[in-house]
Amino acid sequence: MTLSIDGERLYAALASLGQIGAYVDETTGLRGVDRLALTDADGEGRRHVVARMKALGLDVSVDRIGNVFGRRAGTDERLAPVVLGSHIDSVPTAGVFDGCLGVLGGLEIVETLNQARRATRRPIVVAFFTDEEGCRFGTDMLGSAVATGRIALEDAYRLRDADGLVVRDELARIGFLGDIPPSPAGCRDRPHVYLECHIEQGPILRAAGDDIGVVTGVQSISWQELTIAGTYAHAGTTPMSLRADAGVAASRINLHLRDMIASDRYGALRATVGVMTLHPGLVNIVPGRVRLTVDLRNPDDASMHRAEDDLAAFLRVVERDERVTITARQTARTPHVPFDREVQARIAARAAARGLRHAAIMSGAGHDAQELARVARAGMIFVPGEHDGISHNPRELSTRDQCARGVDVLLDVALSFADEGGTP
Amino acid sequence: MTLSIDGERLYAALASLGQIGAYVDETTGLRGVDRLALTDADGEGRRHVVARMKALGLDVSVDRIGNVFGRRAGTDERLAPVVLGSHIDSVPTAGVFDGCLGVLGGLEIVETLNQARRATRRPIVVAFFTDEEGCRFGTDMLGSAVATGRIALEDAYRLRDADGLVVRDELARIGFLGDIPPSPAGCRDRPHVYLECHIEQGPILRAAGDDIGVVTGVQSISWQELTIAGTYAHAGTTPMSLRADAGVAASRINLHLRDMIASDRYGALRATVGVMTLHPGLVNIVPGRVRLTVDLRNPDDASMHRAEDDLAAFLRVVERDERVTITARQTARTPHVPFDREVQARIAARAAARGLRHAAIMSGAGHDAQELARVARAGMIFVPGEHDGISHNPRELSTRDQCARGVDVLLDVALSFADEGGTP
Repeated sequence: MTLSIDGERLYAALASLGQIGAYVDETTGLRGVDRLALTDADGEGRRHVVARMKALGLDVSVDRIGNVFGRRAGTDERLAPVVLGSHIDSVPTAGVFDGCLGVLGGLEIVETLNQARRATRRPIVVAFFTDEEGCRFGTDMLGSAVATGRIALEDAYRLRDADGLVVRDELARIGFLGDIPPSPAGCRDRPHVYLECHIEQGPILRAAGDDIGVVTGVQSISWQELTIAGTYAHAGTTPMSLRADAGVAASRINLHLRDMIASDRYGALRATVGVMTLHPGLVNIVPGRVRLTVDLRNPDDASMHRAEDDLAAFLRVVERDERVTITARQTARTPHVPFDREVQARIAARAAARGLRHAAIMSGAGHDAQELARVARAGMIFVPGEHDGISHNPRELSTRDQCARGVDVLLDVALSFADEGGTP
Repeated sequence: MTLSIDGERLYAALASLGQIGAYVDETTGLRGVDRLALTDADGEGRRHVVARMKALGLDVSVDRIGNVFGRRAGTDERLAPVVLGSHIDSVPTAGVFDGCLGVLGGLEIVETLNQARRATRRPIVVAFFTDEEGCRFGTDMLGSAVATGRIALEDAYRLRDADGLVVRDELARIGFLGDIPPSPAGCRDRPHVYLECHIEQGPILRAAGDDIGVVTGVQSISWQELTIAGTYAHAGTTPMSLRADAGVAASRINLHLRDMIASDRYGALRATVGVMTLHPGLVNIVPGRVRLTVDLRNPDDASMHRAEDDLAAFLRVVERDERVTITARQTARTPHVPFDREVQARIAARAAARGLRHAAIMSGAGHDAQELARVARAGMIFVPGEHDGISHNPRELSTRDQCARGVDVLLDVALSFADEGGTP
C-alpha cells in the first residue's frame, strides 16, 4: 500500500508556524511573516518546531551553529541517515511557505510513518539549518555552509548585523548555541541522501500546469556590496557642474544592470539592487556616500563571470563620469550547483507513479541543498506557487494540494533511499 | 571714526560654538558639526549663545516656537528695532559657519558697540530662529515662518521627526518652549529692518574675487516627498519581466532630473535627490516601496513651475513603464523672494566705502531673511567660501578676513538703519 501524507494536517502546521513573527503589511493589509534569523521570533519558531519534533518521538540535537536535527531511528542504526531539511528563518517580508514547507513536510512524513508504524532501515533525520536567508548577517545558507565545511565556525560566529550584534551572541541569547559539532546530519555520518522540498518561488511550474519540479540544480549567485564615495554638498547652492553625487552614481548602476539584462549578452541573468542607502539621507544635501548591494543570478557560470566583469568595468566609467570612488566587496558567491542525477530520476519516477505532472527546473534561489550537495547526494522537489509564484512577500501562496503533492513525492523518494542498504 | 569689529574674536566665537555637536567624519577624518534642530546638541548650542547674550547685557526672550531674541536698548525705545538674525541649528554634516556667522556676527557687533560705548537711536535685536535647516521635521525656516505668520504655531507644534517625536515636545525637552508670542523681533514691533550676514554656500563670489555679495533675493524652492509602491519579490526567482521594482523607478526619477537640467529648458534649475529609502532594504528582495525626496531650486518662478509640471508628467510615465504607483506630497514650496532695494543699495555703498569688492548675487539656499521679507524690509550680505564654497559639509570654510569683512559691512548697514528715525 502506498502511504500518503495528510495534506490538511501539513497545511495546518504551516499556518501554525506562520503565526510566529506574523505582522500586517501597512500597504496591503495582508498578513506576513518576519522571523529574521536569530531574533526573538526565530527563537520562538525554533522552540515551536523542536516541541513538535519531541512530540513525534524524535531525538533532537542542536549543533554549534544552531542547526537543529530530529532523528527517527532506523532498524539499522549503523547506516547513514536520510536527511530531510530546509530552514525556518525568513526574510522580514515573508509568507508562511518558504523553507517551512521542507521542514514541516519532513515532520509530516515522520508523523505519517509513526501512525502507520512504518519502520525504515536507515534513520530519517528532519533538519532545519540556521540563517538560510542571509538577510541579517549578510551571508546566506550560513548554517548549512558551516555544517558542510565551506565556512569556518569561528568566521560564522563573528558575523555582525547592522546593529553590531554577532552570530555567536545571538545564538546564545535565543538558546540555540548547541554543543555538538556542526554537521550536515546531526551525527558523525554524512547523509545517505539529502532531500529538500521547497516552493518554487517563481512562475514557471504554475504557468506550465506542472505539479512537481524536479530541480536540476541551483543557479550561480553573486552578491556584492558597493560603497560609493562622492562629496556632500548643499542642494541649493552647489552648481550642478561641481557636484559628485553618490546617489546619482548609484542610480546609474541600478539602471545599467537593467540595460545589461536587456542586451541579452548575459544569458538568463537576473539582477537586483535591494539596498541603496544614501548618506546623510536628507532632502537638502547632495548625498556624499551610498551603500548599495547588487544581487546577480545566472544558471550559467560563464555568463555570470562575464556579467561580473562587465559590471566592474562600468563601475570604473561611473567613477570617472561622476567623480566618485567606488569600492566593491563580494559578500556571497556560489557557482552553479548541479543536483544528483539519481535523485532527480527517482523524483521524476515517483511523481509519475502518482500521476503527477512533473518537469525539470533550475532553481532561481539559493537553498541549503546546494551546500549539502558538496558532501552528499542531494536533490530538491519544487512545488508551484500562485500569483506568479511570488515569494519573500506576504502574497506567497501554494495551495494545500500543491504542498501535499510535493511532500507525498518527498515521502516516496525518502522511503526509497531509507530502505536501501549498501555503504553506510 | 568708523567702528570695525574684532575679526579674531568673531572667529574664536565661531570655533567655540562649533565645538558643540562636533563629530569626526569617518571617511575624511575632518571634524564636522551635527546640531540638528531641537536635539540635545542644539539645546547646548542655544544655551551657549544665550549665555553670551546675557554676558553682553542683552535682554533675552524666547518665543513659543523657540526663537531667541537678545535686545540692546536704543535711546528711543518707542522705535522699532533693527534685527540682526540667522540660525544656529545645523544639518547633520555641517561646518561651523552656516547660520552661526549671522548670529555670532550680530553679537560681535553688540560687543563692538558696547566697548565703544556707542548708543543707537533704535534698539538692536540679535535673533536666532528655530530649525532653519528643516532636516529633522521636514519644513525649513520653521521658526521664522511661524514668527511671520506663514505657518500656524499649532501646525508647527505637530510636525514629527522620523522617530515620531513632535516639535512642541522637543522644544519643551530642551528647555526652549518660550512664553512670548512668536514674533519676528521678540517684541510687538515689526523689525525696522532685518539684516542677515551669511556664507554664500557656493563658488561664485570666491571665483570672481569679490568680498561681499549683495543678495538680490532667494530663489524658489520646491520640496517633494515621493512614495513609490511596487511589488516585493524574491531576487533570485522572479523573472525580470514580472517585476515592479520601486528602486528602479526611483533611479529613473533621479536620472531624469539630471536630464531635465541638461536639457536647458528650465533656466538655472538645480535638482537633488537626497533621500532614497528602499524597503525592505535587503540584498535579495526586489524593493517593493521607496521613499524619495526631490529638492528643486530655481531663480525664476515660471521655469520652476514648468520643471514641477514636467516632473509630474514623467512620474506618470514611470508609473506606467514600471507598474508602480507614485504619490507625491509637497513638503516645502517658496516662490522667488526679492530683497528690499534700499537695503541692497546701502550694503553696496558701505562695502564700497570700505574698499571692498562687491557684486549682486542671487541666493541659492533658503534663509530666514526670505520669511522676514514678508513683514519687514530685509536684506542679506554674503561672504565668500573656500573649496568652491562647499557647505553642509565639514570642509565648509570662510576665512577670518572673509567673515570679518561681511560683519563689518553688517555693522555699517545696521548702524545706518539704527540711527534713523521715522515711523516706528
